[in-house]
Amino acid sequence: MIESIEQYRQSFDDYLQKILQFGEPAGLYEPIGYIMDLGGKRMRPVLVLLSAELFGAPAENALPAAAAVEIFHNFSLVHDDIMDAAPLRRGRPTVHRKWDPNTAILSGDAMLIRAYQQLDGYPPELFQPLTRLFSRTALEVCEGQQYDMDFESRDDVGIPEYLRMIEFKTAVLLGCALQMGAIIGGAEVAEQEAVYDFGIRLGLAFQLQDDYLDVFGNPETFGKQVGGDIIENKKTYLYLQALERCGADDARELRDLYSVRPTNPQSKVDRVRQIFETCGADRQTRNQIGGYTREAFARLDTLTGNPRAKAALRDFGEWLLRRDF
Amino acid sequence: MIESIEQYRQSFDDYLQKILQFGEPAGLYEPIGYIMDLGGKRMRPVLVLLSAELFGAPAENALPAAAAVEIFHNFSLVHDDIMDAAPLRRGRPTVHRKWDPNTAILSGDAMLIRAYQQLDGYPPELFQPLTRLFSRTALEVCEGQQYDMDFESRDDVGIPEYLRMIEFKTAVLLGCALQMGAIIGGAEVAEQEAVYDFGIRLGLAFQLQDDYLDVFGNPETFGKQVGGDIIENKKTYLYLQALERCGADDARELRDLYSVRPTNPQSKVDRVRQIFETCGADRQTRNQIGGYTREAFARLDTLTGNPRAKAALRDFGEWLLRRDF
Repeated sequence: MIESIEQYRQSFDDYLQKILQFGEPAGLYEPIGYIMDLGGKRMRPVLVLLSAELFGAPAENALPAAAAVEIFHNFSLVHDDIMDAAPLRRGRPTVHRKWDPNTAILSGDAMLIRAYQQLDGYPPELFQPLTRLFSRTALEVCEGQQYDMDFESRDDVGIPEYLRMIEFKTAVLLGCALQMGAIIGGAEVAEQEAVYDFGIRLGLAFQLQDDYLDVFGNPETFGKQVGGDIIENKKTYLYLQALERCGADDARELRDLYSVRPTNPQSKVDRVRQIFETCGADRQTRNQIGGYTREAFARLDTLTGNPRAKAALRDFGEWLLRRDF
Repeated sequence: MIESIEQYRQSFDDYLQKILQFGEPAGLYEPIGYIMDLGGKRMRPVLVLLSAELFGAPAENALPAAAAVEIFHNFSLVHDDIMDAAPLRRGRPTVHRKWDPNTAILSGDAMLIRAYQQLDGYPPELFQPLTRLFSRTALEVCEGQQYDMDFESRDDVGIPEYLRMIEFKTAVLLGCALQMGAIIGGAEVAEQEAVYDFGIRLGLAFQLQDDYLDVFGNPETFGKQVGGDIIENKKTYLYLQALERCGADDARELRDLYSVRPTNPQSKVDRVRQIFETCGADRQTRNQIGGYTREAFARLDTLTGNPRAKAALRDFGEWLLRRDF
């Protein structure tokens, strides 16, 4: 991680260690400690801290809100992993595999409540807007997950629908993180909305880039199996763009390729990648990522406030999106 | 239901119909409408409304808090039913059977968030104490469910532990319902605590009575299969009392009977019931229920406030516990 951000991540992790001292029943709380300790970039809490500083509050004041967002994010991973029957998360067994699905359900529920509780200590005039924003966002994330599951069995998903799904499933929580920092920093509503929109665009760019790198990423640095989405027949932005742009023959072939799961998938992955390139879905996706990125930074540019925090937010956004094309 | 209460239940159900107009995605929201429409006594929301009136607030002001508690209660049923692999709830298919476990997980999550959102409209000075109390209670209910699951595989559960489990799993939400009404009515902290304690004792008496009626209830009026807990080898208060009170031979026989699941369980049910009676576990349980009931009403007696609401709370408590011995 870039140096200007590392200190924020570190101070968040120190804070997390302090608040994750749970008691009994161990069967409920041990899985929470386990999933929270698996780490990750801590992207969302860092955004909360930087945004609070941008609007003039000490980052320490934003640590509880940062914890709320990160615990919520991990809650959603625990429950999504059950629904996706995922065996691994960050290279380690998922909670429902290491324990069992019932444990993953109940510990997840407790995490969602614990996430809310992180806000308990804010004064009433901050507590209410923070909690309302948090609830609205949490519900949108659930709606995003539902759309994602619905799309698996649908053949007629349009690109606007897909973008709304990833906005709900991924981007709104980045927007929420940034707006929470703004609320803690006492920002005006217009500033809160601008920094929220920065997060939405950043999130959309980030998620589309994830779709892109899954197909065209460097296997050395991507971290996941390149081609995984194609193997899983996942209808990503690239796939939907390709269907919309390519001719009837390629479209038919693409649909056929996405209806099978060959034991050795390499030739399928290669052929799909070729169709994506032939019809320009790869270029279009890069353009879209670039567009969202520019829109994101344009929103950030409208904001005044602590210049050091603003520069750090820009650095962080650039770092997030710098993953190699 | 008794007449003095029926109007509260009715006005709550009318309110619920208004707020349960959900939109898209239907896959997320239809199961919520389904479970909420299965009905039930609406015991918890009625307690919120009566408590608010007791402390001088119009019952209408308490409708959103009542909805929060009832939606939360139904959330816990949806997730508990997955964990217990229960096929039926109130005589109808459970959500995870009518749809599937993933739907029950995600719609349940959305219900928990929706429950919090019911409180959004209260002014900041009520919003924060209501939300904090709600979070603390919700977490205790999760802890109670975890203890309940832990007890299934344990042979050394003590009576104090069992009572704490039912306090968390059942009683705290009744206490929370009553305290929420008190908060909305502007009650002093000491009054809030007294009415909370009333709810705890009422909840303990209610749950022990449920254990009791499961064995000794009238099959015509109990509503569930009498003997069900014995068939399921469920270690209830009666069982734990019997083990503590009976001689070594009966204790051994009881443990043996609770280690098998005969195809035709009637003789097992009869023999267990006989042991409960021989060792006085039935009488002791009735005494304990009576003790909690008296303690509950003693708490209620300490409270001043709207006499009509107080009488209605007493009627309601008596009605809840009047189910035939």
